[in-house]
This record gives sequence, C-alpha cells and structure tokens, in this order.
Amino acid sequence: MDDKNISQAVIGRLPRYLRYLGELKDSNVERISSQELSELMHVTASQIRQDFNNFGGFGQQGYGYKVNYLYDEIAKILGLNKTHHLIIIGAGNLGQALANYMNFERRGFHFKGIFDANEALYGKKIRDMYVQPMDDLITFVKDNDIDIAVLTIPKASAVKVAEQLVGCGVKAFWNFAHVDLNVPKDIVVENVHLSDSLMKLSYNINIKQMENE
Amino acid sequence: MDDKNISQAVIGRLPRYLRYLGELKDSNVERISSQELSELMHVTASQIRQDFNNFGGFGQQGYGYKVNYLYDEIAKILGLNKTHHLIIIGAGNLGQALANYMNFERRGFHFKGIFDANEALYGKKIRDMYVQPMDDLITFVKDNDIDIAVLTIPKASAVKVAEQLVGCGVKAFWNFAHVDLNVPKDIVVENVHLSDSLMKLSYNINIKQMENE
Repeated sequence: MDDKNISQAVIGRLPRYLRYLGELKDSNVERISSQELSELMHVTASQIRQDFNNFGGFGQQGYGYKVNYLYDEIAKILGLNKTHHLIIIGAGNLGQALANYMNFERRGFHFKGIFDANEALYGKKIRDMYVQPMDDLITFVKDNDIDIAVLTIPKASAVKVAEQLVGCGVKAFWNFAHVDLNVPKDIVVENVHLSDSLMKLSYNINIKQMENE
Repeated sequence: MDDKNISQAVIGRLPRYLRYLGELKDSNVERISSQELSELMHVTASQIRQDFNNFGGFGQQGYGYKVNYLYDEIAKILGLNKTHHLIIIGAGNLGQALANYMNFERRGFHFKGIFDANEALYGKKIRDMYVQPMDDLITFVKDNDIDIAVLTIPKASAVKVAEQLVGCGVKAFWNFAHVDLNVPKDIVVENVHLSDSLMKLSYNINIKQMENE
C-alpha cells in the first residue's frame, strides 16, 4: 500500500464510508455489496470501487464486503487505532463546543488541556479541564506529550502561537483560525474555515436562484 | 458566464482568494500580478489563472489584476452582495459560537433566531436573540423570510427538522449534524462534519509518521 499517491479527495471521503459502515455494524449487517452501499450512500458503485481500489480493494469477491472487516480497515487507514493527545487554544464557545464533544474521545482523540489569553477564564472548568494561562502552554505541551493543537483563537494570534507550538514538538494543527498557518512542511494542518464554508453555501444558493429565474 | 459547469473544488477556493484580496485591499495595494498572488498564497500562478478563467479571467492584461475589482467580482460570484436570513437550530456551544461570530453579519448573513428543544434554555439571551422553543419554529420561519437554517443539533433530530423546514420554505442548510440530510435536489446543503475533518487530520499524521519511520 503506497498511501503517498492517494488524493486528499479520496481521503476526505473515507470518514463518510466509516460512518455508514458503523451504522451497518450497529444494525448487525454482516455483508454489503458495492451496489447496496452505493444506494445507501447515494454515490455510484464505480466510485466506491475506485476509492477502495486505492487501498487494495478490501477483497469484495462477488458476494460483497465484510462490514466489520471493511470498517476496521478504513479506521486503521485513518489512524483511528492510535491515540492522540490534544490541547485547545481558545476557550471561547467554539473551543468549549469541541472540548465537550465526546465522540472525539471514542476515536482516540484525548483532550488534555485548554488555554486562553483571557484572565477572566482562568480556572473555569470545561468538561474535566481547567482553563490555563498561555504562559503555562509550553511546559504543559512538553510534559503531556501533546501532538495535536486545536486553534480556536482569532487569526491575529494564531500564526505566532502555531510557531511556538511547533518549537516544542506539536506535530499537527486543527486550525479554526481564519488564517493560513506558517509552519514547516512536515507539520500537518487541517483547516476548518467556517466562513469559507458559508460562502460556498451562499454561492450554491445564488446558482440555484439563477437556474430558477 | 455559465456557472453550472464550474466545479465545487474551484468554488471552494474562491473564499481563500477573497480573504487574500481583502488583506491586500486593507493594505492599499491596487494591482497584483498572478505571479505575486501566487507567491503570497503558495499556489501556482497557473492554478490562479485557470481558476479565474472559469469566470472570464477578470481581465489581467500583462500588468496585473485590479485588487478592488477582483475582490468585488469574486464577492459577487459568491453571492455576498445579497442578504440572507438565518436561524440556528441548537443553542449549545456550537450554535452560540456561530451566533456570536460577527464576521458572518458583515458578509450579509443575518441571524434572526435561535431555537432549542431544551426547555432550560428558553429565554436565554445569545447575542441579541432569545432562545425559542421548537414549537415556534415553523411560524417564525414563515414570518421572518428565513432562507438558511444552521443545524447544530444531534443527528437523531436533524433529518426530521430539515424536512419540516423545507416544508415551510427554507432553501438551504448549513449542516453541522453528523448525518446526511434527506432533502430535495433543489435545496442547498453545505455540510461541516467536524469529526470527518479530524479523521483527515489523523490520516495525514499517520502518513507523515510512516514516511519518517
């Protein structure tokens, strides 16, 4: 398996397969054909086969995929069999929403600490964490083997904080700040730019309206 | 301009162009070549020209794009010259985070109401809105010309609520619930599946680790 050549578009579709397979598992479905999966997910069977062929095809032999096996394999490809230690920088509503979302924990993403520059928030309890001052950030990252930082801070501070965190060993950023981080190539960045997503929605509303006029 | 053939990948890149052009505008830059924009944004000049050619090219004539003009044109393509009325379904941390994000308002997205099934939240003030019960939803949507619903509720209720909202005229969904909505083809859906994004991050960490081993 040579993952290096697999496009981010294919990778981006794997979590959706995992979600549907999880639901099939929960309903005790043991096998599913690419045709059945196609109808369930509203994508073509050929797309499914093409996507899976990137990983060796997962061995459909005319009578369908084994749901449990396929689920486990996709989870493994996504690295969900590993454990990650996360911190959240920014204890506002968005940081709190992410901290409280229990499903991440189930997937091996463990929130270890939450930090904010606002003194008024220090000591506030969010889930089982107390909001800590930014001055304690570097020591905490080193002492707690943190590999992922979640940035839910304004863009003005995000770039600088990211650089600091790279300096003390953080390997990946889940970046909600509306700015491109300036980090070395071996650092992983996944951006969630909410206003970009809203603009895409706006574009598609516009297009539908023009079609209907 | 025939927008129908423009891929969602191109559309997805427009907000990032807009962000950089906005910063150039703020710095009083009047013109920029595709080469300069390329260096600033870390994408190839050829990608930029290809993207812009989908919309007629925006008239670079050897001496660069006019920043103000380009900004306005892209904003128009994204439908940002129009006004939208939004409601948020789900007044938890994520719903509150979105309600409080002032930048959406600047772009023409006006939050009109916020709803929750949890009685304990009724009357709670979020920004300038009071959390309302779900029983008042349908009437509110009709009376306030709501065109976009933001779903920040658990997946168990999202599908049903979306169907109700389509029934009373909502044209688009910004869906944060971790489920695919079951709505007619002429309804626009933009999904933000946060756990999918985290899994993509996890995949890329995994790949980097394998490369370094």
